[in-house]
Amino acid sequence: MCADKTASAGAPTGLPLASPSAVRPEVCGFKPYTPGLSIDEIRDRYGLAHVIKLASNENPLGTSPVVQHALRHKANLAFRYAQSGNPRLTSAIAAHHGVPAECVVAGNGSDEIIDLIVRVRAVPGVHNVVAFNPCFSIYELQTRLAGVEFRQAPLAADFSFDWDGLMALVDDATAVVFVTTPDNPSGFCPPVADLERLARALPSGCLLVVDEAYMDFCGDESAHSLLARIEEFPNLAVLRTFSKSFGLAGLRLGYGILPVQLADYLRRVRLPFSVNILAEEAGLAALADDVFRAETLRVTSEGRAALTEGLTALGCHVYPSKANFVMFRPAPACKSAAHLFEELLRRGIIIRPLKSYGLPDLLRVSVGSPDENAAFLKAAGEIMAHA
Amino acid sequence: MCADKTASAGAPTGLPLASPSAVRPEVCGFKPYTPGLSIDEIRDRYGLAHVIKLASNENPLGTSPVVQHALRHKANLAFRYAQSGNPRLTSAIAAHHGVPAECVVAGNGSDEIIDLIVRVRAVPGVHNVVAFNPCFSIYELQTRLAGVEFRQAPLAADFSFDWDGLMALVDDATAVVFVTTPDNPSGFCPPVADLERLARALPSGCLLVVDEAYMDFCGDESAHSLLARIEEFPNLAVLRTFSKSFGLAGLRLGYGILPVQLADYLRRVRLPFSVNILAEEAGLAALADDVFRAETLRVTSEGRAALTEGLTALGCHVYPSKANFVMFRPAPACKSAAHLFEELLRRGIIIRPLKSYGLPDLLRVSVGSPDENAAFLKAAGEIMAHA
Repeated sequence: MCADKTASAGAPTGLPLASPSAVRPEVCGFKPYTPGLSIDEIRDRYGLAHVIKLASNENPLGTSPVVQHALRHKANLAFRYAQSGNPRLTSAIAAHHGVPAECVVAGNGSDEIIDLIVRVRAVPGVHNVVAFNPCFSIYELQTRLAGVEFRQAPLAADFSFDWDGLMALVDDATAVVFVTTPDNPSGFCPPVADLERLARALPSGCLLVVDEAYMDFCGDESAHSLLARIEEFPNLAVLRTFSKSFGLAGLRLGYGILPVQLADYLRRVRLPFSVNILAEEAGLAALADDVFRAETLRVTSEGRAALTEGLTALGCHVYPSKANFVMFRPAPACKSAAHLFEELLRRGIIIRPLKSYGLPDLLRVSVGSPDENAAFLKAAGEIMAHA
Repeated sequence: MCADKTASAGAPTGLPLASPSAVRPEVCGFKPYTPGLSIDEIRDRYGLAHVIKLASNENPLGTSPVVQHALRHKANLAFRYAQSGNPRLTSAIAAHHGVPAECVVAGNGSDEIIDLIVRVRAVPGVHNVVAFNPCFSIYELQTRLAGVEFRQAPLAADFSFDWDGLMALVDDATAVVFVTTPDNPSGFCPPVADLERLARALPSGCLLVVDEAYMDFCGDESAHSLLARIEEFPNLAVLRTFSKSFGLAGLRLGYGILPVQLADYLRRVRLPFSVNILAEEAGLAALADDVFRAETLRVTSEGRAALTEGLTALGCHVYPSKANFVMFRPAPACKSAAHLFEELLRRGIIIRPLKSYGLPDLLRVSVGSPDENAAFLKAAGEIMAHA
């Protein structure tokens, strides 16, 4: 046990519990997720009137007017529990992707689906979970919280995927392999043939979870995603989210498309009302709002090109991205990535340092509106010119 | 492992995994939470124009106009992630109760806090969790999902708490004891001295979690709740929710007030954005809305008295309740509780059968508006007169 601070560090594991605040060994020294800084925090810290946030890959167009209308119209429903299992929403998601509704499980963000997949599948002390390094930190946090071994294969130097390195960590006790594509924080997006090969190469008991949070920004889904062919792969699950292109990050709505039997287990173990009723209404409205989504994809694609060109022109090394953000190494003249990040903060521009990903020399900037992108490039240029 | 349906039932536990849909033994045969039926389901099933739902202990006044205003005003924030840890909201909750803010952890409903407490404290195969039987099913579901032993002490025949029976199940490996007060589904609410005695009697490593979801309906909190004195008890955690008297069931917002070190661990392991941004805004608005809350408590108290009197007059046995619902046994002339429940459904009135609590002869009805309560009593009287 990890006892409270007054207990000796070498206290034996197990019963009796050392104190009412003692926690499991897995939880000791648990560091929380490192989120992007919020606008309020930076406004307060530097006394700024206007702050630009390009740190959390939120939608550059804000909340769709159609969604806002739905939220205002349905605000009176806040006192009601949503229907357990969210059947209207999961049917609409299934129709959107052309997959069977019984394969779809909605969650309080795809974070919840990640947590549930690890919890239902992996036996502590027996199974393991495999991913790349760096990867989305929730894979590791939820695996460790479950008391399950987490194995990581380094990415290649250019942030492409070393499939052989990944497969070398997989064995018959691997319950889940997580792959993010397009990847976060690099934006790398492998060809679909690579994923097909991986799905077929994994041991028969291993579930491949492809986290496609950013897939709709890739420009050509059929070249990068197996989702349309998911029924060919009994060991494939795909995660998607309403947080990015649908613009619902704050409402918490993600989903998994899973083998039907596993989807059934997830529905049984999930907390019954984990998806809130306004997320459900907003999700239904967002799925029907083709105009906002198309405009989001256009603005993101153009903004990504503008950021890539602009940062390259400033002497930065920019990694090619298929997502709604770009990762870059500041120009050699710049003192450090941390310096650029801090100086941007002073000017009211929040981007994402990647120290928590183990990449202290790199930064990630979300694609914003044309004005936000231009303000970021102008400030970055000024800072790097005086570094 | 619980393999898929094609694998043999006697497959050995452990590696290798039998299929990509195989799940942990704990998850096999997991039955999901049984929620109240929804208005849409009953409207569709019986072709009804108007349905009354008195099944899920929702607020009889609906959503506060103040909250609705806040939701409409903040709908444009849906695209933003909330600030991780919800500092504004937890500060406001702390001020509401007069407790230190660092003791408060907000969750996606108090269900999430229940799940986190079990997960951070109880080591599978080592510790156990103790509660009464019947109890709120989420205690058992989340304990079993964590792979931890769940022990239950029967309630007394009158649904009061058999403290000796509970203590007889507690040992040095008991990580958590859950007590709900007022209790669900009975409405029983023990005096505060009983809880104080329990808190002092538990082994030093055991955490007492008192779930006070319905406490604000009891009429005199100081006579029933230890919350105001929580700092006297290093082993006490109290759960509260915005789902009932605040009228925010659909938005999912609950919280725990915990020993400070345990609260810190919960913040570390929780999913970073589990509370959605509109729940946060609605919670802040609801805390400031004294008028709606006072009216809710008045309507609930009067409605509870009306239901108790009315059902008693119809020959039912009604259990005394301090919550926003009453539990009752139908009049002896009535064929069965299931019959009364089904006949009410046909008339568009949804109440809660208690079969999932192991109480097939009893029913629970939430306090509704005066009109809803009257409609329920009228229909129940007609059905029991013709049974």
